[in-house]
Amino acid sequence: MSEFRFEISAADGAARTGAIRTPRGDIRTPAFMPVGTAGSVKAMLPESVRETGADIILGNTYHLMLRPGAERVARLGGLHKFCGWEQPILTDSGGFQVMSLAQLRKITEEGVRFRSHIDGAEEFLSPERAMEIQGLLDSDIRMVLDECPAFGASEAEIEKSLALSMRWAARSKAAFGGGGACFGIVQGGVFPNLRERSAVELQAIDFDGYAVGGLAVGEGQSAMFETLEATVPHLPTDKPRYLMGVGKPDDIVGSVLRGIDMFDCVLPTRSGRNGQAFTWQGTLNLRNARHAEDTAPIDANCRCPACRKFTRAYLHHAVKANEIIASMLLTWHNLSFYQDLMTALREAVAAGRLASFARDFLGRYRAAVEEPEK
Amino acid sequence: MSEFRFEISAADGAARTGAIRTPRGDIRTPAFMPVGTAGSVKAMLPESVRETGADIILGNTYHLMLRPGAERVARLGGLHKFCGWEQPILTDSGGFQVMSLAQLRKITEEGVRFRSHIDGAEEFLSPERAMEIQGLLDSDIRMVLDECPAFGASEAEIEKSLALSMRWAARSKAAFGGGGACFGIVQGGVFPNLRERSAVELQAIDFDGYAVGGLAVGEGQSAMFETLEATVPHLPTDKPRYLMGVGKPDDIVGSVLRGIDMFDCVLPTRSGRNGQAFTWQGTLNLRNARHAEDTAPIDANCRCPACRKFTRAYLHHAVKANEIIASMLLTWHNLSFYQDLMTALREAVAAGRLASFARDFLGRYRAAVEEPEK
Repeated sequence: MSEFRFEISAADGAARTGAIRTPRGDIRTPAFMPVGTAGSVKAMLPESVRETGADIILGNTYHLMLRPGAERVARLGGLHKFCGWEQPILTDSGGFQVMSLAQLRKITEEGVRFRSHIDGAEEFLSPERAMEIQGLLDSDIRMVLDECPAFGASEAEIEKSLALSMRWAARSKAAFGGGGACFGIVQGGVFPNLRERSAVELQAIDFDGYAVGGLAVGEGQSAMFETLEATVPHLPTDKPRYLMGVGKPDDIVGSVLRGIDMFDCVLPTRSGRNGQAFTWQGTLNLRNARHAEDTAPIDANCRCPACRKFTRAYLHHAVKANEIIASMLLTWHNLSFYQDLMTALREAVAAGRLASFARDFLGRYRAAVEEPEK
Repeated sequence: MSEFRFEISAADGAARTGAIRTPRGDIRTPAFMPVGTAGSVKAMLPESVRETGADIILGNTYHLMLRPGAERVARLGGLHKFCGWEQPILTDSGGFQVMSLAQLRKITEEGVRFRSHIDGAEEFLSPERAMEIQGLLDSDIRMVLDECPAFGASEAEIEKSLALSMRWAARSKAAFGGGGACFGIVQGGVFPNLRERSAVELQAIDFDGYAVGGLAVGEGQSAMFETLEATVPHLPTDKPRYLMGVGKPDDIVGSVLRGIDMFDCVLPTRSGRNGQAFTWQGTLNLRNARHAEDTAPIDANCRCPACRKFTRAYLHHAVKANEIIASMLLTWHNLSFYQDLMTALREAVAAGRLASFARDFLGRYRAAVEEPEK
């Protein structure tokens, strides 16, 4: 993988900043990856996603394999060309979505048999097929297929699931055809001994990066942070560490403090479509009546179109009237906020002042979260 | 109304081209006005609407009076500032939407009492209130309140309705407070004598422009064209003529041939949200399976983002997957097409070759309209 390099330029405690070099461009770390589930970061044009500062987006193998189909995307020239995003793309394995189908899937040693949520067709995902699909999509970072046990499973259940995930990780790596990077996924629930075992076993397989999976599923922030503290020290320092599916701004700050380099989450896009806006002082719910005649922008210092050109009063109206422009503007703002946060984190790590940055940020941010009105 | 001037620079048969000069900018005619119902041209940012070539947009009084409310818009600085569109805005009177509420409204000499489709609240619209609302919105062109009889009404019913509309037109003009232009609306169904009477009576009141209302409601294109031929000769040549709610590209070409200067229609925006794309050869339905692996753009000569950066295959996928980007891109394309059509019409009139342009256009355009698959 000579074309895929992780260069750390500065460290501050457990945190680091640097860049992942890929043939399609650099990914500045710590990095936040907007989620482009089915070939689109919802309500955004690719050039607008890039304008927010994103270096990489995420595509969901589960959605793309069902529609338009991996072979079709390959015939059309790969996912980048198909969806108009030239920078790096990370694809997940599809496992997380498939596992959440609950009544619709059956897990065996070989893989997962499931029914499509679109047309009910029977589908099959194995470690080998997950890697094949990601190769057809031509993504830059590909994830091993793993089992994702539900939160609340016993230690014995998690241990059994972990063993399967580690066998699948080895099969995934063996099936990985190159042309990108391949990341392993540490599992083990909230059990430090299982997390350590998983980290060690994955390194024996040897991946280009290591993700922490199975968190942000209901365990709470302090259990998540404790699990990171029990996991990160067992991961190599010279490979990127990716916390999957996380998270809220304060989750991200706390995880960077604990050595995480990469994040993805639907929160800025999904909550944008639901009227929520992130600011340095906390979240706003634009649906609430108190914004109806507020001529201030969401954030006077933000450079996104929502803040440069529109008032909270207009956004309130657009949210209430279900105008698509509300989703467009609030998504753009939230993705800008997330990228600005990542820039601030990178600068704080580079300057050796991450602890004070985090303290200041969390003091302001947690103080003001606006709930929707009843 | 010295600030509102209509300057005709060339004529070709009944058709003319020129510009309406307003304090907020020039409106090149023949003009197409995208519909921004509730303070947003759906799925578009205002700057993108402007990029397509639009000089003016339309706002719906009915929607805006109910939400966010005309007084609120006035407190927020007027509709232009509120919705981020600096160029001219035409507002309708709200009559058309109110009349279509059928069971929810009651028409008297005084005005229309109706119930809001949003919260069921009782509302009232009179000629005076319609003008007051449009003044609060601070629109550049304001329309009189008129009654809109359903298609199929008898001549006697239309005549009775027309008489009310003419009394309301006089009251509207009397209530018009200036600060913009005020247009009358010719009614009279498909009856030439009633259309003529309406045109004559409106000129006695004296308006800045004259709209033709009550068409495109089911009478068919040839009856619409015949009605225009029976109406336009009775309108003054030195004032803009506006055909309300029209229409399909071939409706617009045929109406320009018959002397119309202004159009508005939800077709490009609404059909864009429904997977339909306009081209010079006819319409495409991107939902249809034949586009699934077509790597061509909608139109190789179009300069909109949908055509410059995306394939029909991607748009097909985005439509099928209900991705918001499908609405964004297809709306942008359709509005670009409509503005390109208006530019071509203006150039053809200026060059004295409108008849041959229309013949060529209609020959190609009507040949290919793609219906959705069953």
